[in-house]
Amino acid sequence: MSVLAEEIAEQPEVLARALIQAQPAVEAAANAVVTFAPDSVVIAARGSSDNAARYAQYLFGALNRLVVALATPSLVTLYHQPPNFAGKLVIGISQSGRSPDIVGVIAEARQQGALTLAITNDPSSPLAASAAHVLPLYAGPERALPATKTYTAQLLVLAMLSAALSGDQTRWNALRQVPALVQETLMRNTIIAQRVERFRYADRFAVIGRGFNYATAFEIALKVKETSYAIAEPYSSADFRHGPIALIEPGFPVVLVAPSGLVFADMAALAHELAALRAELIVISDDAALLERAGTPLPLPPGVPEWLSPLVAVIPGQLFALHLALLRGLDPDQPRGLRKVTETR
Amino acid sequence: MSVLAEEIAEQPEVLARALIQAQPAVEAAANAVVTFAPDSVVIAARGSSDNAARYAQYLFGALNRLVVALATPSLVTLYHQPPNFAGKLVIGISQSGRSPDIVGVIAEARQQGALTLAITNDPSSPLAASAAHVLPLYAGPERALPATKTYTAQLLVLAMLSAALSGDQTRWNALRQVPALVQETLMRNTIIAQRVERFRYADRFAVIGRGFNYATAFEIALKVKETSYAIAEPYSSADFRHGPIALIEPGFPVVLVAPSGLVFADMAALAHELAALRAELIVISDDAALLERAGTPLPLPPGVPEWLSPLVAVIPGQLFALHLALLRGLDPDQPRGLRKVTETR
Repeated sequence: MSVLAEEIAEQPEVLARALIQAQPAVEAAANAVVTFAPDSVVIAARGSSDNAARYAQYLFGALNRLVVALATPSLVTLYHQPPNFAGKLVIGISQSGRSPDIVGVIAEARQQGALTLAITNDPSSPLAASAAHVLPLYAGPERALPATKTYTAQLLVLAMLSAALSGDQTRWNALRQVPALVQETLMRNTIIAQRVERFRYADRFAVIGRGFNYATAFEIALKVKETSYAIAEPYSSADFRHGPIALIEPGFPVVLVAPSGLVFADMAALAHELAALRAELIVISDDAALLERAGTPLPLPPGVPEWLSPLVAVIPGQLFALHLALLRGLDPDQPRGLRKVTETR
Repeated sequence: MSVLAEEIAEQPEVLARALIQAQPAVEAAANAVVTFAPDSVVIAARGSSDNAARYAQYLFGALNRLVVALATPSLVTLYHQPPNFAGKLVIGISQSGRSPDIVGVIAEARQQGALTLAITNDPSSPLAASAAHVLPLYAGPERALPATKTYTAQLLVLAMLSAALSGDQTRWNALRQVPALVQETLMRNTIIAQRVERFRYADRFAVIGRGFNYATAFEIALKVKETSYAIAEPYSSADFRHGPIALIEPGFPVVLVAPSGLVFADMAALAHELAALRAELIVISDDAALLERAGTPLPLPPGVPEWLSPLVAVIPGQLFALHLALLRGLDPDQPRGLRKVTETR
């Protein structure tokens, strides 16, 4: 069994542990945020962590009414012309906590008097040292190069922070269901190895999600690129209609991330448009009718609140990327050209 | 001659006109911004206009010290849970001014008391009507479906606004050189039709830029996708190293947007890494040494200030996309599946 397969399977346990162990630090950070009352949020991150930041844009926007900007680290590290971070909550997200550009943004923001927060799997990392508050992931060492359990742990910790900021106890109750829902998603997709066969020779994919699952589309596309060396381009359904839909020809494989919720109707409408163009549909959803229209249905359990759906909707995508790599005789644990800690400036 | 070719050639004239005609509205908007003193900026846009918004992130960040967030319109239009826009400058950018999701964000922001600004080629559009201030592009009707002259006009108007906000007269002097520099870039790339031959059968590209030209990478990738139906994925050099570099195998075509400036060293280092992986390099630059290392050099004129370089660096990319489409027997003016006004919600 590959390490990646083990770490994907480990996620229910990792999330259950993080729910308990991260709670005190989350509550403390939330209190600091409420006291500070930031005018907006800036998040610095790269790779999978940047996809977690995309989730936070919708999470803090919809549930906490906070505008979230994704940082442009080169303004700090290469241009030496940082924007004014005063009055802002500035969050750095990094599995390793060792990317100098992310550390650079947090250090600069702290010096400017912003409220700073690090979300990392390594509480002894430079990123943790640079921030006023640290939220560890408690995910255990991640040995496969493509991030899986640290990605879902990042989403969970962000969702816990949002719940703590809202003071709404029902959100905590929903959060506690997540590990079991992730487990059920893993169980519902055990036959994915066969389903992936069809894509043995596919070298390009589009991956589409919207709202909360815009992040999921980005993360699934990144997993496919890292492990299978197929091009997989992520889009929102709206951005896709503003140009890239021109790419679609009969047989073009499109992954639709479409769990139930307020953006479902928009995603289902896009599925109809793509079917008319004779695209090849791979659908991640809990909606039976939409799954039935897919050449490749990847089912989700019912009853997942939309704000938490990215934690389950990414799972079939992780499995899809893993099995596509194995089918192609590639090593999913150690993609070519990558190191676990990427030190960009 | 295709309409797209005409509109690409028209850009020096369009920019020269916008420089003069848009100045009064830009000065008025800048005065309103200075009075309002926003804590940050939010920009709502789609497609090419969203790439102009990416430029604004670096422009306002580096030159005006403003944090810029790209809006997540679905929070307003689909979730009906808009973030708190109070105290913010909220800008909508749209060629047509008719995309309901962009209009929705501006209308909501204005109702919340934000300072609102529309940048559009149609001052009688719903977007213009929804904003307190309007900056028209004066680009004339754009008849080809892929945006070219309205994209560079959007960049120019944003750069004019940044200059007006800074109160620095030398920036206006630099701006006035732009039309001639764009003209010179067009002249230096007249043999591009032959250079594109090599890519007759390429169906995937990576396009990489950083800092100010992160936007340029996105815009060139979009042009290639719209006109030639090849997949072209945009990245920053840093994000590329955090995963997608695994895609690179010998012969993989990579467009590097690398004009002189503070991120040039980082881009040149990436060019070395990619050459070691035997990627096929297409280089847009004014640096003679880097151009010499490229299989396909696309030269820029010397002496362009980095903050204005996206206005010239996109030109060879527009020409590349145009000639790739023509070489493939496609109609660059009317890509399949697209309409000029895309009404997403």
